Amino acid sequence: MALLLHLSDVDEAAWAAKFRAALGDYKVVRRGDAFNAAEIDYIFVWKPKPDAFDGLVNLKAVLSLGAGVDALLRHPNLPKAVPIVRFVDADLSQRMSDYVVAQVTMHHRLFTRFQADQKARRWNQLYPPAATETTIGIMGMGVLGQDAARRLAPLGFALRSWSRSPKQVDGVDGFAGEGAFDTFLAGTDILVCLLPLTPETQGILNYETFSKLRRGRLDGGPVIVNAARGGHQNERDIMRALTDGTLGAASLDVFEVEPLPQASPLWEIENCYITPHVAAISDPDSGVRYFSKILLDHEAGKPLINVVDIERGY
Amino acid sequence: MALLLHLSDVDEAAWAAKFRAALGDYKVVRRGDAFNAAEIDYIFVWKPKPDAFDGLVNLKAVLSLGAGVDALLRHPNLPKAVPIVRFVDADLSQRMSDYVVAQVTMHHRLFTRFQADQKARRWNQLYPPAATETTIGIMGMGVLGQDAARRLAPLGFALRSWSRSPKQVDGVDGFAGEGAFDTFLAGTDILVCLLPLTPETQGILNYETFSKLRRGRLDGGPVIVNAARGGHQNERDIMRALTDGTLGAASLDVFEVEPLPQASPLWEIENCYITPHVAAISDPDSGVRYFSKILLDHEAGKPLINVVDIERGY
Repeated sequence: MALLLHLSDVDEAAWAAKFRAALGDYKVVRRGDAFNAAEIDYIFVWKPKPDAFDGLVNLKAVLSLGAGVDALLRHPNLPKAVPIVRFVDADLSQRMSDYVVAQVTMHHRLFTRFQADQKARRWNQLYPPAATETTIGIMGMGVLGQDAARRLAPLGFALRSWSRSPKQVDGVDGFAGEGAFDTFLAGTDILVCLLPLTPETQGILNYETFSKLRRGRLDGGPVIVNAARGGHQNERDIMRALTDGTLGAASLDVFEVEPLPQASPLWEIENCYITPHVAAISDPDSGVRYFSKILLDHEAGKPLINVVDIERGY
Repeated sequence: MALLLHLSDVDEAAWAAKFRAALGDYKVVRRGDAFNAAEIDYIFVWKPKPDAFDGLVNLKAVLSLGAGVDALLRHPNLPKAVPIVRFVDADLSQRMSDYVVAQVTMHHRLFTRFQADQKARRWNQLYPPAATETTIGIMGMGVLGQDAARRLAPLGFALRSWSRSPKQVDGVDGFAGEGAFDTFLAGTDILVCLLPLTPETQGILNYETFSKLRRGRLDGGPVIVNAARGGHQNERDIMRALTDGTLGAASLDVFEVEPLPQASPLWEIENCYITPHVAAISDPDSGVRYFSKILLDHEAGKPLINVVDIERGY
C-alpha cells in the first residue's frame, strides 16, 4: 500500500514531504525511490511521462494535480479502468476568479481606450457603460464558472452562462447546448472561457464565435477572456479579430503552445493582454489536505469524490 | 416659487426638460429665462459662475449636482445661511466602485509587471499573491467608501479603512483620526482615496504617506488609487515615488489641474494609469428623481436630507 508521486515541472520533493506529514503511516514514494510497482494504490500526477503507469497493476485511483485533465486523458498508457480524481479547491477557484474579475472589470472600464488616450496625451471624457448595462457571458459553469459568477454578481454586471447541460445559478441567465450558443453570444459583451477542454470545446474561441458577440455596448467592441486552455482558442482568428475590430480586446492566460513562442505576433498586439499561465496556481498545502483526505476516506471505505467522467472528458 | 438651474459644462437644457417633467406645476427656469430672482426657492448648481447667487434673497436650499462640494464651498458669494444638499446616489456610487474595483484588481494581478514582460516577449511565471494576503486601505468611509468596501469584500481582499470619525463596517478593520494614520498605512498594500476634499485632507497623497505603506506583498511596491479629488494629491511626489520605486503603480482619475495639461510628465510614466475624471458620472435620470423628491418633500414640510456640514466641509 503506497502513494506514488509523479510530478513534472513542480517541486515533487516538497509535495512528498507534505504528504508524508499528512498521511502518517501510509507509505509515500517518489519516482526515484525503491518500491515495488505492485504495491502502488494511488498515483498523484502532474504532466506524467509515458512510462508513468507502467507496472501499476493494483492502482485504485489516479490523483490529478490539475483541475483540467485534458492532457492526462490523452496519455497513451493511462489505465482505462482506474478512476481519476481531479483537484477541486476553493483557493484555486478564488485565484482563477481574481484573474477573471480583474480582466472583466479592466475591459468594462475601457482600459484599452484610455491607455491609447494617455499615450496621445488626450483628455477625452468617455464614460464607460454602467455595469448593469454590461453582460458577461461565462462559458463553462463548473466549480470555476460558478465561483466567477458569484464574485461578478455583487459588482452589478448582467450575467449569462453557457454550458453543456443546463445549470441553474442564482442571478445567472443560463443557456445550454449547441442550439443555444448563438443566442448566448448575441447578448454577450465580455466572453469568459472557463470550459473544460474536450473535442467539443476545442477551438471554440474562433472568428465565427467572435463575430456573433454583441456589438455597441463597449467602445472598441466585444472582449474575450480565456483562463481555460490554449486548445480552446484559434490564435490566428484572435489576431485577425483584434486587428479588424471584430474584437475590442482579448485577455489570454493560456496559449496553443506554452510558453508562448518568442516569434508569436500576439505579443505585439496592443489590445491583447498576455499573462504567462498564472491565472491560478495549485497551492501545495491545500492540495495535500484535499488529496490526503480523499485517500484516507477511500481507504476507510468511502467513495471517491470529483471523479472524472471519461466519456464526457472532465 | 421656482427652481433655477445653473449648470456649466453639462447639458442644462436636457436637465431642465427632465425636471419639468418630474415637477409638474412647480416652475423650473434656466439662467437665460425671464424670472424674478426673488421667486427662486431652490438653485441646482454645477460649477456656478461668480454671479450665480446674486439676488436670490428667498433661497431655501442649494442643490449640488456633484457628490463632492469642495469647489462649491469655495464660491465667494455662496449664501452662508442656506443649506446645501449634495447628490448621493446609488448609481453614482456603483460607477465609482466599478472604477475602484477595476484598478484594485488590475494592480493586485500585477498588471504593470506582465505588461513589461509582454513588451519584452518574456514568459515569466510570477504568481500574484492571494486576494486574502492583499490588504486594501480605503481612505474615506462615507457612502462611496462603504460601497467600495462592500464590493471588494466578496473578492476576498483584506480590508481596512481610515476616516475622520470612527466607522464600523462589517469585514473592514477601521482606523480613525490622525493618530491612527501611520498604523493604517503600515498594513496597506493598495491605498484607495475616496475622501472629501477639506483643508485636512488636501495633499494627503504625498511622498511621506507613500513611504509608510506596506512593502513586499506586491511585486513592484505598494499602489495608490485616487478617485476623489486632484487636490488630495501632490503630483510631484507621485512622480518621484513612481520613479524611485516607493510606489509600484498609481491609478489617477483626478488631477491638480483638469484637464491634465499636455505638458504634464505624468502622461508618460508607464506605471501611472490615467483616466480623464470619468470614474463616476451623475446620471440625469437619477439626479432628477433624487432632487425632485427632496424639493417636493421639503415643500410638503419634510426636512432636507444629505445636507452638507459647512464646518466639516462635506
